[in-house]
Amino acid sequence: MGMRYPFLLTASALLIGAVPPKLLTPNDIVADAPASAWRTIPANDLLVMDLANGGRVVVQLAPDFAPVHVANIQALARANYWNGATVYRVQDNYVAQWGHNESDKPWPAGVTPKPPAEYTRPLNGLKITPLGSPDPYAPGAGFSGGWPIAYSAKEGWADLVHCYGTVGVGRDLSPDTGAGGELYAVIGQAPRQLDRNIAIVGRVVEGIDRLSTLPRGTEALGFYKDKAQYVPIASIRLASQMPAGERPSYEYMDTDSATFARYLHVRANRHDDFYIRPAGGVDLCNVQVPVRKKS
Amino acid sequence: MGMRYPFLLTASALLIGAVPPKLLTPNDIVADAPASAWRTIPANDLLVMDLANGGRVVVQLAPDFAPVHVANIQALARANYWNGATVYRVQDNYVAQWGHNESDKPWPAGVTPKPPAEYTRPLNGLKITPLGSPDPYAPGAGFSGGWPIAYSAKEGWADLVHCYGTVGVGRDLSPDTGAGGELYAVIGQAPRQLDRNIAIVGRVVEGIDRLSTLPRGTEALGFYKDKAQYVPIASIRLASQMPAGERPSYEYMDTDSATFARYLHVRANRHDDFYIRPAGGVDLCNVQVPVRKKS
Repeated sequence: MGMRYPFLLTASALLIGAVPPKLLTPNDIVADAPASAWRTIPANDLLVMDLANGGRVVVQLAPDFAPVHVANIQALARANYWNGATVYRVQDNYVAQWGHNESDKPWPAGVTPKPPAEYTRPLNGLKITPLGSPDPYAPGAGFSGGWPIAYSAKEGWADLVHCYGTVGVGRDLSPDTGAGGELYAVIGQAPRQLDRNIAIVGRVVEGIDRLSTLPRGTEALGFYKDKAQYVPIASIRLASQMPAGERPSYEYMDTDSATFARYLHVRANRHDDFYIRPAGGVDLCNVQVPVRKKS
Repeated sequence: MGMRYPFLLTASALLIGAVPPKLLTPNDIVADAPASAWRTIPANDLLVMDLANGGRVVVQLAPDFAPVHVANIQALARANYWNGATVYRVQDNYVAQWGHNESDKPWPAGVTPKPPAEYTRPLNGLKITPLGSPDPYAPGAGFSGGWPIAYSAKEGWADLVHCYGTVGVGRDLSPDTGAGGELYAVIGQAPRQLDRNIAIVGRVVEGIDRLSTLPRGTEALGFYKDKAQYVPIASIRLASQMPAGERPSYEYMDTDSATFARYLHVRANRHDDFYIRPAGGVDLCNVQVPVRKKS
C-alpha cells in the first residue's frame, strides 16, 4: 500500500520543504509566451493616427468582421480624407470620437457610401476559444482570430464586442451604418449594449491613453462646446502607407494557442500573491488579448 | 365577439394613426423620476477632495459595507491627515490612487491601524433588487441600498463590487487590509477580480473625470516616475466639516423603487431610436445607479 501511488507520494515529498512554485500572473504568462504564440498584424490592417500634440494612437482593423467598412477606412486613409480632422467628442466612461464631425466632405474613390449592416458575421468558419464564463449579452462569448467575440450557435452569428479600446463607426439613426469617416474608441466600461447595433472595425493597440486622458466635452454626449477645443489630428495613415523604416509593427497573441488558454485561465482565477479569493470566472472585456509592439 | 376584448380593441384603435409612444431612454426615466425615488446622502458620508488645480472629486462612503474602514477614513478627514497628499498613481484602464504613498505618517486618534477584512458582509438584512442577468464573478448580482452588489445566498455573503468610479483602500499583501490612508478609484473596465480581495469603501459621485483624465504614470502599475508629476491635493474633507453654505449635497436613486426597476429594465433592453437589437441582458457595472447633485 505504501507503493500504491508512488508518483503522488514522490511529488508530495518533493513539495515538502521545497520552495513552492511561483504563482503566475497573467503578465508572467505573456512574458513567457513562446514565439509560436504570436501573430503579426499586417501593415494594411494598422491605422496610425498621429495627433498634432505628438501623441500616437494605433488601431488594428478587423477585415474578417466588417470587410466593407474596413475597406472604406483603408480607402479613406489612402486618399488622405482625414486631413484636417479632429477629435471632437470625448464622453467620460464612454467614447472618444474623431473625423470631420458630419461635414459634407465628398467621399473619395473606392468608398461605399452606404455599407451593409456588418454588425454580425456568420459563425461558420470561425475557430472559437470559449470564455468559459456566462455573458450577460449573448448566448456565447469567447475569442477568435485574436478578437473577443460574442456568438449564437443556434442563430449562427458572431460579432465583435465593445470593450475598452474597441473602435467602431459613428452612424446616424438606423438604417444608416456610417461609411467610416467618423470613428470612435471606447474609453470606459464596456458599452456592450451597442453590440450588434453598430459596426465595429477594430481596436486600439497603442496609445489609448492619448484618447482616454483628453478633456471631456461639456455638451450633450461629450461633444466639445467650442471648435477651439477640438483636438487636431496631424495625420491618419495605414502603416502600409508609411516609409518602410518608420512603420510600427505589432503582434497579438494567437487566441487558439495553449498559451492563451493558460492566460485566460489565470485571468479568471487570480491566485498570485495579492489575491486571497480567485473569482472563478471573468468578464469577456476583462480578458484583453495581449498585443505587443515588434518595432 | 366584437365586444369580447373592448379594451384591447380600443387601445389598438387608438394606436393606429396616432403618434407612437416615445421609447424611453434610461436618461428619460431618471429625468422623470418622482421625488420619492431619491435618497439624500448624509453629509458624513461625503468625502470631498479638492485638487490644487481646482478640480473637485466627491466620494460617497459606504458605512453599511465597510464600517471600520469608513470610520477610519472619516477620522483621517477630521484630523486633516491628508494635508499635503497627492495623486501619485494613475494606471490606464485601471485605477487612480492618492494619499501619502506609503509614508510612515502616524495615524491620528480614532483610526484602527489594522482593520478586519471587510471584503464581504452578511447577506442577512439586505433588501436586494436582482440584476436579472448572469454575473461571471458571483452566484448573485443586483442592487441594495443604492449600491451594486454581488452575493451568495448559499454562503450568506454580499459585497460591493469594482465598477467604474468604485473607491477602495490600497493595501499590501494579505493579511494587511490597509487602514484607509491610501485610496484608489477605478477609471476603466470594471476590475471585478479585485472583488472580495480588498476593502471597497465607496464610489465617486462627482468629478471622476478629474481623475480619469490625469496623465498616466509610466512606472510599473502606473506610478508617476518623478514626484514633480504628483498631482497636489488641496484638501480632503467630509462635507459635514464644511461650512453649511458650502456643503455639496447629492441624492441617489433608491434601488428598491419602481423607478429603478424600470431604469434597470431599459438598461438591459435599449429600444430607443438608435437601437435595433436590444441586448436582453446587462452587466452589473453597466447599470450605474443614478446620482445627482442637490445643491
